Amino acid sequence: MSTIQIIGLKGLPIVKEGDNLAKLICEATEKQGTPIRNGDIIVVTHVVVSRAEGKIVNLDEVKPSEFAKKIAEPYGKDPALVEVVLRESKSIVRMGYGKLITETKHGFVCANSGVDISNVPGERVVALLPEDPDASAQKIREEIRRLTGCDVAVIISDTHGRPLREGEINIAIGVAGLKPIRDRRGEKDLFGYVLRVKQTAIADELASAAELVIGQADEGVPAAIIRGYQYPKSENAKATELVRPKEKDLFR
Amino acid sequence: MSTIQIIGLKGLPIVKEGDNLAKLICEATEKQGTPIRNGDIIVVTHVVVSRAEGKIVNLDEVKPSEFAKKIAEPYGKDPALVEVVLRESKSIVRMGYGKLITETKHGFVCANSGVDISNVPGERVVALLPEDPDASAQKIREEIRRLTGCDVAVIISDTHGRPLREGEINIAIGVAGLKPIRDRRGEKDLFGYVLRVKQTAIADELASAAELVIGQADEGVPAAIIRGYQYPKSENAKATELVRPKEKDLFR
Repeated sequence: MSTIQIIGLKGLPIVKEGDNLAKLICEATEKQGTPIRNGDIIVVTHVVVSRAEGKIVNLDEVKPSEFAKKIAEPYGKDPALVEVVLRESKSIVRMGYGKLITETKHGFVCANSGVDISNVPGERVVALLPEDPDASAQKIREEIRRLTGCDVAVIISDTHGRPLREGEINIAIGVAGLKPIRDRRGEKDLFGYVLRVKQTAIADELASAAELVIGQADEGVPAAIIRGYQYPKSENAKATELVRPKEKDLFR
Repeated sequence: MSTIQIIGLKGLPIVKEGDNLAKLICEATEKQGTPIRNGDIIVVTHVVVSRAEGKIVNLDEVKPSEFAKKIAEPYGKDPALVEVVLRESKSIVRMGYGKLITETKHGFVCANSGVDISNVPGERVVALLPEDPDASAQKIREEIRRLTGCDVAVIISDTHGRPLREGEINIAIGVAGLKPIRDRRGEKDLFGYVLRVKQTAIADELASAAELVIGQADEGVPAAIIRGYQYPKSENAKATELVRPKEKDLFR
């Protein structure tokens, strides 16, 4: 029998700029009686990472451009927020139905360049995506190793909508210690056939699994431990491996 | 502390047409010492459901149309397989890069109308999607209730690629007993703000979570139990609630 556990992390204090997030995570896991173990996968929602890294913008200090004002109005959006979204984007991929889908400077395609108006203290304050989410994940991973001696994988997650399907799911925008895609080419299935399904986006599946404890809590659960999953290890993986190049995408 | 368990289901025999899948699942859970409990979510990969329902096609008995032959050739595909894909589709959504993305008669948009050449015994045999995956899920759910007295939710999962992102994930194509989307509009977050993220595709996240035990096993694990997740109940949910209508989709 193979069993995987998804353990929600409660008791993390409100994270502020400069906080040692890895240390806060380790303390919270100790406190709730689920100390980190070798082989754990730590999934952290990007907002707490962004906050620890000071990737916070006060909209009162943003002067919207004419273009931002023009596109904010029909969307019923805050022009300062649209300005931040534009600044965080490399290009606009789609506009319509009150949505602004952009390509971020990292290469992710998502609504509003991933700028998050929820979960940030202060009415007119927003959280941007971390500058380099893989580096953020690696930093947390190394600090956890230093503090606990455990080798873990770290995933930084974000909530994304998606083409074709309704509802949002959590996906991985930063990874450290694991390959985001499990390559199953050449593996055989139950009947000995070579598998048609070739590459599984396990980092996205792990982020979605973590959302089940992160999203259902009444109190704040900004992180989760996934325990018992044998992940393919990597020391140089990048979450952008999960982004399909535009020129290979039938839907762009 | 909130913890969710994902328990892989081993020891399920090779399913054949007419088998009582619910009964086989209950027996397998008993045998491995994880009997079904109230509130469990049972995730079953569609191939075993299709097999139990006889949704199997022998490609040797399929006469490909001229159109199927014409589009099979540049793709290096079996014309009989393409013929089955076309028969199972309502329309072709995209063609290119050796891929055939169709809308199935149920309304799902996926590669090859969900026709599966893996995990089916017999070299030239393929599995179609179940005729009505919600009804299949409901049937399994009711039979589990009859056999065990437990009220569970059932998800029938399939492996899908997706626009924008590399790698495949598992998603829900049939549901029974739970709402596929958790509606969080009006809920407040950690700081008391009304959540920007409004609707979470929990059935897809649960299917992805289940894939973690289904996909990593050396032996066949065609089903999983997810335990400890408080899902929103429903007696008339449909997995097609997860399909974005074409006219509202910026990427179609």
